[in-house]
Order: sequence, then C-alpha cells, then structure tokens
Amino acid sequence: MIKVGIVGGTGYTGVELLRLLAQHPQAQVAVITSRSEAGLSVADLYPNLRGHYDELRFSVPDVATLGACDVVFFATPHGVAHALAGELLAAGTRVIDLSADFRLRDAEEWSRWYGQPHGAVELLDEAVYGLPEVNRQAIRSARLIAVPGCYPTATQLGLIPLLEAGLADTQTLIANCASGVSGAGRGASVGSLLCEAGESMKAYAVKGHRHLPEIRQGLRQAAGAEVGLTFVPHLAPMIRGIHATLYARVSDRSVDLQQLFEQRYANEPFVDVMPAGSHPETRSVRGANVCRIAVHRPQEGDLVVVLAAIDNLVKGASGQAVQNMNILFGLDERLGLNHAALLP
Amino acid sequence: MIKVGIVGGTGYTGVELLRLLAQHPQAQVAVITSRSEAGLSVADLYPNLRGHYDELRFSVPDVATLGACDVVFFATPHGVAHALAGELLAAGTRVIDLSADFRLRDAEEWSRWYGQPHGAVELLDEAVYGLPEVNRQAIRSARLIAVPGCYPTATQLGLIPLLEAGLADTQTLIANCASGVSGAGRGASVGSLLCEAGESMKAYAVKGHRHLPEIRQGLRQAAGAEVGLTFVPHLAPMIRGIHATLYARVSDRSVDLQQLFEQRYANEPFVDVMPAGSHPETRSVRGANVCRIAVHRPQEGDLVVVLAAIDNLVKGASGQAVQNMNILFGLDERLGLNHAALLP
Amino acid sequence: MIKVGIVGGTGYTGVELLRLLAQHPQAQVAVITSRSEAGLSVADLYPNLRGHYDELRFSVPDVATLGACDVVFFATPHGVAHALAGELLAAGTRVIDLSADFRLRDAEEWSRWYGQPHGAVELLDEAVYGLPEVNRQAIRSARLIAVPGCYPTATQLGLIPLLEAGLADTQTLIANCASGVSGAGRGASVGSLLCEAGESMKAYAVKGHRHLPEIRQGLRQAAGAEVGLTFVPHLAPMIRGIHATLYARVSDRSVDLQQLFEQRYANEPFVDVMPAGSHPETRSVRGANVCRIAVHRPQEGDLVVVLAAIDNLVKGASGQAVQNMNILFGLDERLGLNHAALLP
Amino acid sequence: MIKVGIVGGTGYTGVELLRLLAQHPQAQVAVITSRSEAGLSVADLYPNLRGHYDELRFSVPDVATLGACDVVFFATPHGVAHALAGELLAAGTRVIDLSADFRLRDAEEWSRWYGQPHGAVELLDEAVYGLPEVNRQAIRSARLIAVPGCYPTATQLGLIPLLEAGLADTQTLIANCASGVSGAGRGASVGSLLCEAGESMKAYAVKGHRHLPEIRQGLRQAAGAEVGLTFVPHLAPMIRGIHATLYARVSDRSVDLQQLFEQRYANEPFVDVMPAGSHPETRSVRGANVCRIAVHRPQEGDLVVVLAAIDNLVKGASGQAVQNMNILFGLDERLGLNHAALLP
Repeated sequence: MIKVGIVGGTGYTGVELLRLLAQHPQAQVAVITSRSEAGLSVADLYPNLRGHYDELRFSVPDVATLGACDVVFFATPHGVAHALAGELLAAGTRVIDLSADFRLRDAEEWSRWYGQPHGAVELLDEAVYGLPEVNRQAIRSARLIAVPGCYPTATQLGLIPLLEAGLADTQTLIANCASGVSGAGRGASVGSLLCEAGESMKAYAVKGHRHLPEIRQGLRQAAGAEVGLTFVPHLAPMIRGIHATLYARVSDRSVDLQQLFEQRYANEPFVDVMPAGSHPETRSVRGANVCRIAVHRPQEGDLVVVLAAIDNLVKGASGQAVQNMNILFGLDERLGLNHAALLP
Repeated sequence: MIKVGIVGGTGYTGVELLRLLAQHPQAQVAVITSRSEAGLSVADLYPNLRGHYDELRFSVPDVATLGACDVVFFATPHGVAHALAGELLAAGTRVIDLSADFRLRDAEEWSRWYGQPHGAVELLDEAVYGLPEVNRQAIRSARLIAVPGCYPTATQLGLIPLLEAGLADTQTLIANCASGVSGAGRGASVGSLLCEAGESMKAYAVKGHRHLPEIRQGLRQAAGAEVGLTFVPHLAPMIRGIHATLYARVSDRSVDLQQLFEQRYANEPFVDVMPAGSHPETRSVRGANVCRIAVHRPQEGDLVVVLAAIDNLVKGASGQAVQNMNILFGLDERLGLNHAALLP
Repeated sequence: MIKVGIVGGTGYTGVELLRLLAQHPQAQVAVITSRSEAGLSVADLYPNLRGHYDELRFSVPDVATLGACDVVFFATPHGVAHALAGELLAAGTRVIDLSADFRLRDAEEWSRWYGQPHGAVELLDEAVYGLPEVNRQAIRSARLIAVPGCYPTATQLGLIPLLEAGLADTQTLIANCASGVSGAGRGASVGSLLCEAGESMKAYAVKGHRHLPEIRQGLRQAAGAEVGLTFVPHLAPMIRGIHATLYARVSDRSVDLQQLFEQRYANEPFVDVMPAGSHPETRSVRGANVCRIAVHRPQEGDLVVVLAAIDNLVKGASGQAVQNMNILFGLDERLGLNHAALLP
Repeated sequence: MIKVGIVGGTGYTGVELLRLLAQHPQAQVAVITSRSEAGLSVADLYPNLRGHYDELRFSVPDVATLGACDVVFFATPHGVAHALAGELLAAGTRVIDLSADFRLRDAEEWSRWYGQPHGAVELLDEAVYGLPEVNRQAIRSARLIAVPGCYPTATQLGLIPLLEAGLADTQTLIANCASGVSGAGRGASVGSLLCEAGESMKAYAVKGHRHLPEIRQGLRQAAGAEVGLTFVPHLAPMIRGIHATLYARVSDRSVDLQQLFEQRYANEPFVDVMPAGSHPETRSVRGANVCRIAVHRPQEGDLVVVLAAIDNLVKGASGQAVQNMNILFGLDERLGLNHAALLP
C-alpha cells in the first residue's frame, strides 16, 4: 500500500482526491492537513465520505508526519508547495503538486503571473510537468510532479496532435474554453454564489488568465516553436466540466485529421478520440478521468475546430494526480480510475 | 461471473445499471435489449460508457437469449415484466424487476393505480419486495424480486424504525418528498424539459401518486396495522436525488430517537444514520447506494421530523437492484457499490 | 413623484427594489446608501440596471439626506433599522423596513431569536405588519411598516383562510417550505456557492428558524388562538422562489374549500387562487408580485394540503414593500407591479 | 391601440410576445392561434399570464380574423409564414415573422439549409430584415419584416462596427456562441430534457448551423464583401441567454476600438457598449431587450475579441419583434420594452 499524505484537503481538489483514493486498491490516505479545520473529521466536512474515512481527521501540517508518507499531494493555493516541497523531498517523499507552483519552467514568468517571487527556484529543474500523454517517461522517475491545470489539460490534449505533426499555423491558435464553477474553488466568493454564477454565461479574464503561459509553454514544446495563442475562458452555470473549443489553421487539406488524432492517442487509456462528427459533452466525463476529443473541419475550410471535454476536478486535477501517482509507483495507470462517468 | 441480462436498457435506470455493473467484479452484462434502439452500441447512446462496453449492442428482446442469463433486470415501463417474467423464471433465470409490476401484493390495487389489468397475478405470491433492510432473508432465496420505487425507499427507511417500535401515531403520517427530474425518466415530455422543470419547484399528483399504495403497503407491514398517510411529491430543479421530509406524531417523549434509529440500522451497509442535528443533502449520496437519515424533534414537541436522502437512480433504483443481486447470489452485499458519492 | 431613499442597497432585496422602482411611474430613487460601496454607481454593481440609474451612486448613510425623502426602505441586516428608524420618523419620513427588525410585536421574543437586545422597543407599538391582505387599513395610515419575511408571506397567505374561518385544528399545523438560494442573500458564504447549493436539496434549521415566531404571530392573529406549528424550511437548487406545502387538519368535510379561498382573496390584486386541482410552480411568479395558491384534500381525508408559491424577492420582499408604499401613498396598489412573471 | 394577432403562440417566443405585449401601452392581442391548443385559455397553458389575458384563448388560424389585425406576428416553425403571409399582406395587415422564412434573401440558399422549397419567393423582395440597428429606415415603411435569429442578432451587433469601418480581416472571422436551452424551443425532444442538457456543455452543429448563412448575409452587407466565417454554437445549461465570443483580426492597432463601438451605437436604445475591460453576463439582460457588448484586444495583439450578450427570447426574438412593431407604427421604439433585466 502506498502511504499518502494530502496537504490542504478542504477544497474541491482535496475532496476529489479523497473520493478517488477511497476506491484505489493500493493507496491509503494516512495524513490530511488543514490549518483551519484541524481536528475535524473529513467526513464531517464532506458527508459524501461518511463510511469511507471515518477515522481520518484534518491535522496541522507537520513535515515529519508528511515526510513519512510515500507521496504527498498538494491541493493548496499557490505558494504553499514552494515552501514545503523541498523539505519533503529531502525526507525522501515524492511530491505531486496540484497547484501552479511548479508548472512554469521560467521562474520569472511565474512571478509575473502570480504576483510574488517564485519560492523554490532550485526545484524547477527537476520538476516534471505531469501530463502523462506527453511526459510519461519522465514521470516514471520523477520526485516532484506539477499536475497540469484544468484548462491547460484540455487545450494541450486537443492541440498537440496538430502541432506535433507540424500541421497548424502556430501563430493564430485560439482556445475558447468554458469551465464549471468548481474551477473557482470552494472559497466563499460572491462571484461563485449560485445566484451570481447560476443561469448565466460570461467570459472572464480576457485580458490574460494565469493558465495562458502554462498552455503556451506546452504548445511551444509540442510545436518546437513559439506559438501565438488567444485564450478566452468562460464561466458556465454548472458545477463540473471544462469544454474547450480550439481553433487552428491547417492549410494542408489532404491530411486525415481523424486518423491523426486516433493514432496519436491510440495507446492512451484516458484520451478518447470520438468518431468523426461527434460533439463531446462535459457530462460524459463527469467524475471520470477521461478527455473526450472530436475534430472537425467546418465547411471543409482551413480552420480546424477541435472539441475537448474533461471533468476539471478529475482529468483536470485530482484524477490526473492519481494517474501520475500510478505511473510514479509503477502501477497500472488505470488503477482506481477506471469507473464510468456519472450520466445523467 | 454472473451473466446478466437487461431488458429495456435505454432509460436512466438502464444506463445506471450499466454504470454500476461496469465496476462490479463478479457480474458481466451479456445482453441488453431495446426494440427501438436494436443494433445500436450502448456507448453510442451513452457516451459515458465509451471504453466500458465497446462490444455491447442493444438487441431485440428474445426469451432464449435472456433465459440463458443468470439474472435478468427489467428497466422497463410497467406491464413489460408482467409479460416476460414468467417465461424467464421457467427458463431458470432469476428476475429483478425495477418497474412497479410486482411491488403491490394486491393485484386489484395494482390495477386501479396503473389503469390496466395485472398481467401476472400467478407470480405475485412468490415475488419478494426487494428492500433489503426489511426483507433480506426472503431476498436470499427469491426467484423474482420487485425493486422498490424511489419515493417508497426513502419514505420507508425513514419511517419504519418509528413504526416497528410502535411509537408513531399510524393515522397521521405525512411524507413530503422532492425528486430530481431523472425520476420522470428519459422520455421526451414537455414537463421534463430544462426550460420547464429548471429553476422552479412545484408539487404534483397531490391527489394521488402511484407510489402511495406501495408506501402504505410497506408501512402497514412495519406497523402491523393500517396506516393513514398523506404523500405529497414535488419536482425539484435538479437531475438526481430524492429528499423526504417525514412527519410522525410520537407522544412518548422519553424515547431516544437517535439511538432507536442507530440501532435499527446498525448493521445496514447502505443506511447512514447521521449525527443528531444533521440535515442530509441529496448531493451527499449522488451516484452512491446510500440512504442518509437524520431524525429531529423540533421544539421538543410531539411531531417528529425524519429527513432521508437517496439518489433516486441508485438506492432508489439501479443500485438497490444490484444490492439485491448481490444478496441473491450470496455475494458481499457491497460488491460494486462501495464507492463514495460525487461531491461537489 | 415620491422621493425614495434606500438604506443598504447592495443585497438582492436592494437590487430588486431598484428594478421595480425603475418602472414605477410615481416614484424615484433619490438616495441609496452602502458604507462598503460608497461612491460606486449602482449600475456598476448591478449591470442589469445600466441605462436605468446611470446617475445614481451609493452613498454613506446620512440622516439628513434620508430624512428629506418621502419614504425610506431598509434593505439591511437586522439591527440597522432599529438604530435609524426613529430619527427618520422624527424627520417626517415614512419607513418601510424589509428586515426583521419590527416584525415581531414582542421585543423579548425578538431578542431571543435574533440573539441581541431589541434596539427600538419604543417604536413597536406603531409598527404595522405590512401584509396588505390582512392589514391594508392599518398600512394606509402607518408611519413605520415591517414588511413580512418570505416564508411568512407564503405560509400566512396559504393558511389564514382556513384559520379565519375556524376550520383548521390550530395545534397540528405544518409548513413544509422550500426556498431558492437568493433567500440567503448576497453574502459570500460557502453554503450559498453554486457548487454547494446547486443540484441538491436539503432541509435546514429544523430545530428552529427565525421565521417561525413571525409565522406563529400571524397565524395566531388569524385564528384568534395560540397555534402549534411545525415549520421545516428547505434549500432548493434555484435562484428565486418560495414553495410552501401547508398541512392542516380540517374535520368538517362539508366545506367547499375552493370557494372559501376564492372568496377570501376575491378582491386581492396579488393573490391568485388557482383552479381546483392546480399545482402552482414557482416559475409562474418569477419576478412578479403574486402569490399563487391551490388547495387540495388528498383522498378526501381530513388533512388539507395548501400549496403556495411566491418569488421570495418580490411578493416575499421588495415587491411587497412597493405594494405597501403604494397603499401608504394612496396610489393604485398595482402601480409598478403589474407585469407578468418571466417564464420560461 | 394596435390590434395584434399572433400565429402559433404556444412556443417560447409566443409566450414571450404575450408577456411583453401585456405591458405595452399601445398594443392589444386580439387573436392568438394554435391548431393543437385551440379552445384553451392562454393562461391555462402559461400560468405566468394569469391575470393578464384571462379572456384570450387559442383559436384555429383563420385568415379573415388575422387579416383584421393591424399586425400579425408569426411565432411558428419555418414554412408556416411562407404559406400565410401573402394572404395577410393582401388583406392589408403587416407581418412580423419571427421564424426564418424571410431572413435569407436568396431563395435557393434558404432551400438548401431548410431542406424544402422556399414557399413565398415572390415576397422576398419586399421583406425587410428587422435588425433596427442596421435597417431602421427600411423597417419604418415595411409591410413584411423578418426578425433576425438569436445567434445572428448577437453576432452581427458584435461584428458590424469592425466590418463597417473596414478594420477586420473578412476571411478569418469566428463566432463562438453559447445558447440557453430555450433556443431549442418548447418541443418535447430528448436533447432538451433537464437531465440531458443540464449540468453540461457541448458544441453542436459544428458542421453547419442554419444561422450560418443568415449571419454571413448580414456580415457581407456590413463589410461590402464576401466573408469567411466559422460559427460554432454551443448548448449551455441554462434557460435563457446567448453569449457570443467573436474573433476578428484587426491589423491596425492604432484604432480606438472602444470609441468605435461607442460611436456606432451612440443612438441605439437597445445596444449597451460596456466600459473597456467589461465582461457582459447573460443574466444582465435576462428578460430585457438589450444587447450588451464589450470589446477586448488581448495581449495587445491583432486578434480582437468582442463579447456580446442577449436574451435569446427578447432581443433575440420577441423583444426585437416588438421593437420592430414600434418602429413600424411610428411609436417610441422603447415602448413596452424599457424594463430592467431580472437579476439575480
């Protein structure tokens, strides 16, 4: 059994980790920390976990206890993993960080977008960007994994087949994405109230969203070149789900795009290239660690439209984190993640 | 492996059976029938099942094929199981019926509420009402099981501890219940449209709902006497969930109701008596085969308020059906049903 | 033109007052106060008001400015109107308070339920409970009006015909109500997040809700006797709406309840007694100052079920406040309130 | 008073017309037709209209009765107006068609997209496309008005300032739009069920949607040239609202786009150009005849992002129809349409 620690388990990625690990046959949560809720049973905060973790209580973060785990997940606001990851690695623990702390390779860029100095520059070299479909080999031997963000997961999985194949114009990429409100976390903010976010659509952060540099970094790697990307996130009136509508100019109309995508993901257990003409729905991945993709070329023009749907809390966060853990510990990648989505 | 057949798998209880059985370690769906969708892959109708049932296609119902299964679930409108169950039982198959066909012991009463003659009176004697918390022993040796309805499950589990203990006035019971829209099924009816049922609450069928005689029958058995029950169902603007608010007059104020409920369900894997003062939320059981219950006595009066929450498609239908299958085949009752609810 | 002031206009009852007064032909909002948002344009906080109040800005509350208004609405948390109402009345302004400050006639009871001393006991005698269907005459000459709460409005309108007629057993009344989340206000609380309150039903405050003494006070007056009432509020996953399901024992089965209700409300512009057999939906009153009511007697028993639906922000708060203003100033009661509900 | 007839009033644009006309001071609905609901009171079908149209009943369409109206609105599926408009015009009535029958100037293109021959080619020449912000002058003297579709209204209002000014590359336009489910109408289709469309996002009709030729026609006129447009509609889990995210390449970075939009719509009562940096929400226009627009240039690049929000049933259908009626009859354009949106 893998002994698991979780730092900051009171948010939605925390409870989702607990839900997924409860059904994982080879992992057990030994520690979960929260300064604000220390002493509280996790099942008291999250009644869906009653019967699954009746012994587990939130505790104050403590390096010794966490360091005794085989792996520690960070489900924290940015900055926290910077402060603790080094000590935990020194204690021999592996770290899987769901926050943005180690996603950007460039500390200065990180600092610009997050408005504070990078707190662990010395760890950047060994941090592995945990997108298994791109970095599986590096994940196997990593000590520190940066789990991709939700928008970046959907957008990269949707665009990299085109970019790796050198087919798309790299300067005119567009990612028009919609997220469920759980992407904004469990913090008590007016904008996330049911009466503010319900029954309404809006774009936000059109000027620039923190996931933009992360997406650009991944696409740049896939393309082998700088990319020009416009990223417009939207808030949709639902709890879970990311829907990405991706636009790329592909001048060579002779390529069979359906085949290209199917081949790229032929061996990927968690990427589902749907039949030609499909329109993935976010509900088809609710609660499941899957990215469903469809590729279209409307009116046979040179603008390709890729549709990608994930559950932001699963393939966009906690499920992908568990997938990384499975790879890291040499397990079957699907362990604990092989259930069907909840529909309806 | 238990070889499973499903008759009428295109509705919500059908897809939920498929979701649950996909993760069941000792059952395999061999046949699923639908006249209207014969030939279609289940994963084409229900994209959440892609990757789980890629070989399985709907077929026209055929007694020989179904009869070769160890167990056949009916997820059909009423009347269908009447017509087929006898033949399947004769073929040696066990039948678990999710419809209302065998729930009422009195064929005339059935006929009155369902507006057609009962089509299989000869099977009524051996049909077992599949509420494991009441009939576990009978289920073990049953050939034909009638899975309780969603409202009846929540209402009976909430009231039977009081009735079995002879504490409640049996003549003034009230069940004020709210259901998610999936309770109305996947049929294309105007009343279930998002624009009709969304963002609104209403009562319906106050005059009389088909679940009324079923609930009365179960409460009568628990009380050992006729009961007077007012049942008011409501439609709530959500997909899944039943919330029951149950009112019973209990004149003896000396009884520790919390203890009564905890003891009644001490050995029940799927009934969760929450701590005193709790308010179960339907989301805490979303996708899970659990009934969460809390018992209150407001202002220390003689009216007791029991709150019960289930997922209508799981403990209120398909999950309870699988629970019955587990009991029937001598398996651990929790097999395939032991995952946590999806929250948020 | 009536010169209107609003104290505390940043919450949902505040914006709803602004929406309704924008279309009122004889009222104009001259002042709106908010300490936290002083200086901000109301249209910047509430974009639905762009084009309607482009000059109006929140200001710091100031008795002189407010005192120069013909009427001042309080859309504030409890306690604020206690502190200010006296001064404003002294300045000759009339006060319409949407908070709970002057709803209970008994200062000690108020203090018990609100956990603080009553701050304006001297005004209680002249405060008029602003339920026009009961107190229209007193409202006409009032200086200080306490607008009823949302649950109390629906519950009283649903039960008083029975109580005034002396038909119902006064000791066994039950009000089982569901509210949209806007009833919890615009404060940033975790429980009101879309991801917490969405797609779920729950009861809350079963032990005792602050609206209980208010409802009891109104029912007592209608019955001319003490009443025993169990009140169970629920949170429904929607923005607006109160649905009340009311239970009363009526032993005299000879009474024509439909006629009783129709006669009681024959001259009420904002109470709609629906045809026998109806089930009012909250969406049928969305945005409108109407209470729709239906009365049932299931299975011809002695338990009567009354269904009542209002929009908690309109007939349950701001619309009713404007209705009171119309009465107070001798206007047609329907002025500014005569639009149809928004459906779908 | 304008005497109004409505053909096909049982759908959502029909009830919305009734809601808006109920508060219109100079129009009165004299006739409303529906073959399927003939004889039924409109208030029985739409309880929000109780108290507003208690005399009005659906009747079988009859040219004589309709022809006696000053204006007839068609709120019908396509094809119906083709069949009736000519006769009504001959009877001296004006026709405002909310369907797609007269939106495309090219009968062959209409026939291709709608899969049937155009049924009234002879009327195409005089049909005026009822987008007041473009065609106000022509509307004034029209006999037959084709009210624009919902997506076309939002998309054209968002893009025409750029196109009329000759600023945008006309070959690479993208309209990424999301619609509430009411856009699919009140027909009983599985895809519009709350349990299918709720809590989920998806794109649809990426291959080609019927609004594409209509949008292209309008943009072509604004640009004075052929346009290349990719239009991707999405279904959002909400009742009302269209959110359009529009992408256009504008190489001249010296232009003040905010000023351009403000000037273009300076005199438009129903187009709200929001302050720079804004993100319009669909809820800010719920129930109101407004299009709110914001213009962005992310990262100061050459891709301009225009955001536009309307209520699909108001500015996208029935409200715009009433606006056309006002223009047609020489009334103040805002009559009956000047209420604020319902928020929250």
